[in-house]
Amino acid sequence: MSRERILVIGADAAGMSAAHQALRTARTTGRDVDVMVLERTQHTSYSACGIPYWIAGDVGSADDLVARSAEAHREMGVDLRMGTTVTALDLASRTVQNVGPDGDEGAHAFDRLVIATGARPVLPSWATAADGTCCGGVGPVKDLDDGEAWLERLAREPGQIVIAGGGYLGVEMAEAMVRRGLEVTLVTRSTVMSTLDPDMGARVARSLIEAGVRVVEGTSVEGLVADGDGWVREVSTSDGRRFPCDLLVLALGVEPATGFAAAAGLPVGTSGGLLADPSGLVAPGVWAAGDCCEVRHRLTNDWTHLPLGTHANKQGRVVGTNVGGGSARFDGVLGTAITRFAHGDQHVEIARTGLNLAEAEQAGIDVEMLVTEGTTASGYMPEAEPIAVKVIADRSTRRLVGAQIVGGRGAGKRIDTLATAIWASMTVDDVAWMDLSYAPPFSIGWEIVQVAARRLADRL
Amino acid sequence: MSRERILVIGADAAGMSAAHQALRTARTTGRDVDVMVLERTQHTSYSACGIPYWIAGDVGSADDLVARSAEAHREMGVDLRMGTTVTALDLASRTVQNVGPDGDEGAHAFDRLVIATGARPVLPSWATAADGTCCGGVGPVKDLDDGEAWLERLAREPGQIVIAGGGYLGVEMAEAMVRRGLEVTLVTRSTVMSTLDPDMGARVARSLIEAGVRVVEGTSVEGLVADGDGWVREVSTSDGRRFPCDLLVLALGVEPATGFAAAAGLPVGTSGGLLADPSGLVAPGVWAAGDCCEVRHRLTNDWTHLPLGTHANKQGRVVGTNVGGGSARFDGVLGTAITRFAHGDQHVEIARTGLNLAEAEQAGIDVEMLVTEGTTASGYMPEAEPIAVKVIADRSTRRLVGAQIVGGRGAGKRIDTLATAIWASMTVDDVAWMDLSYAPPFSIGWEIVQVAARRLADRL
Repeated sequence: MSRERILVIGADAAGMSAAHQALRTARTTGRDVDVMVLERTQHTSYSACGIPYWIAGDVGSADDLVARSAEAHREMGVDLRMGTTVTALDLASRTVQNVGPDGDEGAHAFDRLVIATGARPVLPSWATAADGTCCGGVGPVKDLDDGEAWLERLAREPGQIVIAGGGYLGVEMAEAMVRRGLEVTLVTRSTVMSTLDPDMGARVARSLIEAGVRVVEGTSVEGLVADGDGWVREVSTSDGRRFPCDLLVLALGVEPATGFAAAAGLPVGTSGGLLADPSGLVAPGVWAAGDCCEVRHRLTNDWTHLPLGTHANKQGRVVGTNVGGGSARFDGVLGTAITRFAHGDQHVEIARTGLNLAEAEQAGIDVEMLVTEGTTASGYMPEAEPIAVKVIADRSTRRLVGAQIVGGRGAGKRIDTLATAIWASMTVDDVAWMDLSYAPPFSIGWEIVQVAARRLADRL
Repeated sequence: MSRERILVIGADAAGMSAAHQALRTARTTGRDVDVMVLERTQHTSYSACGIPYWIAGDVGSADDLVARSAEAHREMGVDLRMGTTVTALDLASRTVQNVGPDGDEGAHAFDRLVIATGARPVLPSWATAADGTCCGGVGPVKDLDDGEAWLERLAREPGQIVIAGGGYLGVEMAEAMVRRGLEVTLVTRSTVMSTLDPDMGARVARSLIEAGVRVVEGTSVEGLVADGDGWVREVSTSDGRRFPCDLLVLALGVEPATGFAAAAGLPVGTSGGLLADPSGLVAPGVWAAGDCCEVRHRLTNDWTHLPLGTHANKQGRVVGTNVGGGSARFDGVLGTAITRFAHGDQHVEIARTGLNLAEAEQAGIDVEMLVTEGTTASGYMPEAEPIAVKVIADRSTRRLVGAQIVGGRGAGKRIDTLATAIWASMTVDDVAWMDLSYAPPFSIGWEIVQVAARRLADRL
């Protein structure tokens, strides 16, 4: 058997998980493989999710966010080429065209290809020049270069910052910026944390407001005014308001980076993400993993774009196993997610899993829901923090199909209990009566997520 | 239909849950019922689990531990008689004999009986006088009177305290006493936290030792020396050692308080606990709930005595539903439990669910296990605390059958995720790949309990 060339495009979570897993699996399956990875940037295996905490000052340097250096990857047997941008893919000849770090064009052949090109931040045209660079004081928060740019911008002692976008990243950047002492205005098209139902998102918005963030919902930033130096000074919104602005964070989401893949004829979904089967395959000999893919929602079987590091890690491992000659599958997602907003005496943890009300309605599921308020520990304990748990069940099957949590310290990770229950197709009755842990510093006598399920069971 | 008398014996978690649920259910089933509750002590519906934190100073007063006063119960329609001790049960005539608060004997007839008499602390004969009272400076930690007695003893400014017993209560009292500034010696027959496997218990012991607790394993307190005032001054252990001792906590476990019930011929198990079917029935017309019962372990179907408030609440609700004419069942336990030891820079959370290695062996299950060390949050976050997760799986079915967690802040409640997985009969593969929450302040990129399951899956 001749040596096989496995080519991976993209050296972050999905790509490097795939690369190393391919090597591990090939050793056990006895395949003789080379693994080459091409990476557009100068960064590999870093935590994009950690960038807001680096900007906030929790993390000392970009190096702390890097799980494994390029050199370490090479020592483990991966032929990693940094600064190498793939420009075209030819499925027939099994080659990619690329531009290397010195601008030199080249090509690489492959036997098996893994596309792990990730996602790109959405950058509106009013915020960018013709060459795609952002106006002074304006930028996204996607990679380590962005993080470095934010630290440089913050060194100029700005006063007012506007955050465009009220999702996970918007809320995390609001935390980072209030902790840095800035006056923060968060502008969001719909509501804060709109992947939660509006009533639960409103709880998050209240905490931001309590911490001094100006929350502007129901409108979008749609323009900016720059000074003579090309630095942002004011933004305008679609409802005609203007806000002074020394810095503007673009937290408007990301889109799959699938340009050359789509151009090569690989099928993409409505978001532009690649559509891989459970093994990660997108075409014969071609796999994909991570933020450049859409994923299947387990409850609806619909495709959805959920660019999260935790999926990228899992998909990368699945694909690596399969390209290495093993067998693994990625069995979809529940849309489980968590974040927090913390500043001063405000500490709110925000988590969700499964379907929210709008998603359940769209999926045609007849649901009943209920919000239960309680505490994270026994009420008499100093650890007790408020928690609100929303549970959503299918009326016909009594199965839990969604949950949302907003609460103080210790509230958020309880979502995993409910995500596990949804993964296992448990009914709200199962959830209410199972044996979870209780002691005063950790819970009320009947764990609050179970009280929520029990109350919903009574209503069904 | 004539009015039915539901008689409940015991007014703590199980009894009062049953009483109120019986009234609620009877309203929906249209039954005409009276609910009378007889309670031996002067306390009702209090959190026994909270007493160590009251002694530690976290909880201001005993009142804070009382979820609902006797008066509040009466206002809700329960005929609650305090200070009333049941001395005998006659199943044939459906009556109980009792001694009231003034020493007056009486009897109460019933149509349906709920036994919720709880458990009593184990008090060794060497620590007690002939009348059952403890030597000066010596006592258990079971009810509010015990808590009051401990606060009085602590007011005498003792220096050295010995805790006999290294289980949940022993560890919680060690926390309370080091926080009160005492020199603490903890003596335990086996090892600290022996419901965990020894390697995991050793992690807890290390934390106690770091906090200044003298941990003495493998021996028992078996005698004491009192001074002329009848106050403890020294204890001796079964291996012949002596320890100076101004106070002695008896944390040697509890036993079901089933004297009159067993005397009436109701079947009890090896621990002395009543054996109820899933509906709570122990004999025609007689139900039981709470710490006076043994419970079925879901994984082995064996009876076990697990006196925990969370089971008492659930069993009380089940029994109340059934005596009220509804239908409910208690589907057993997994042995899920949690506690912590926290003092100064030590903060260790301790949790377990399912079977430990010894229990699995006793049940004849061939298991594989593995300990995974990691962090509760991404390693670069200030929130990151060490965590060790032990997972145990059945080799033949690949199902998760047990888990233990010892770690810093945020570690313990992760046990609920694994308890849910065990409740749902999930394999370690299911656990490894399901969709749990990730963000840097809360988790590493692939949640640590899943990494543990994935590593065990690789080994199976």
